[in-house]
Amino acid sequence: MNSQTESTIAPAIFTPEALLEHWQGHRRVTRRMIEAFPEDELFIYSIGGMRPFSAMVMEFIGMAEPGMDGVATGNWNAVNDLPHHAKNVWPKTKKELLQRWDDVTEKINRLWPQIPPQRFNENDKAFGQWEGPVYSFINYWIDNEIHHRGQAYVYLRSLGIEPPAFYDRS
Amino acid sequence: MNSQTESTIAPAIFTPEALLEHWQGHRRVTRRMIEAFPEDELFIYSIGGMRPFSAMVMEFIGMAEPGMDGVATGNWNAVNDLPHHAKNVWPKTKKELLQRWDDVTEKINRLWPQIPPQRFNENDKAFGQWEGPVYSFINYWIDNEIHHRGQAYVYLRSLGIEPPAFYDRS
Repeated sequence: MNSQTESTIAPAIFTPEALLEHWQGHRRVTRRMIEAFPEDELFIYSIGGMRPFSAMVMEFIGMAEPGMDGVATGNWNAVNDLPHHAKNVWPKTKKELLQRWDDVTEKINRLWPQIPPQRFNENDKAFGQWEGPVYSFINYWIDNEIHHRGQAYVYLRSLGIEPPAFYDRS
Repeated sequence: MNSQTESTIAPAIFTPEALLEHWQGHRRVTRRMIEAFPEDELFIYSIGGMRPFSAMVMEFIGMAEPGMDGVATGNWNAVNDLPHHAKNVWPKTKKELLQRWDDVTEKINRLWPQIPPQRFNENDKAFGQWEGPVYSFINYWIDNEIHHRGQAYVYLRSLGIEPPAFYDRS
């Protein structure tokens, strides 16, 4: 009761638990997008010279997977070592991509409870390059995922495929 | 000094001030997107049967403008009364759309300091329909803006136009 009252009075408007649920909710939408793509179009379809959706997904994974280590421990991979820069080891099928996605989902859930609450407001330098409070890195990864996934909605629509509902985060 | 220490210890990871700056930062990117569109394509260009970007922008305005009253006062417009459902009063030129956009920017900045900090964590029903803590409504409006604006990036790219940088929120 006491801690509830305190958190109402404090200027907290997004708890670590709510941020995790928000992120994983968006990641569930992205997973449904991967599933909605035809196998071949996932890896080759493009409009206006933009990347295929699988490459965007690898960018999401390339930030979230090593990023979670940085968030939890303060040890960051260098930008050039991020997974999405090593195209030779990218998944080559939808099944492999979904498996990689699910592995990251589990990693996020596993490391999240190990992050001390005050860690989210600490200043750090993500991947040795971007400075700011730790929560801002996670926000950026989420925003980046929404942004590029929105682009993939156009890919699907132009292929005549109904995308999953944006508002359904279940 | 004392309040700084307290906010570090509390599980606050997104203060009202940070949320406002986050929102307005995204809105600055959206404004640059409006500017980047050719006048006619802003109102007619479409891929895959999706809406032109101006209609998406009116949806952002249609949530943010009356939504700010709801956030600040608890009095919500009904869904059917939202501005983006009254197409007959939509701006018909880029200049008018930008003016409307800037009016909402000012409204958000004007009302924001009037929102009591604890209001963001209060449960309410946005536009008489969506239940949740107040901060979650604002988050949804931001996410919705990122999502559809990302779609407009594909529109611009397919028109051979370089969109503004996603990461630049200045």
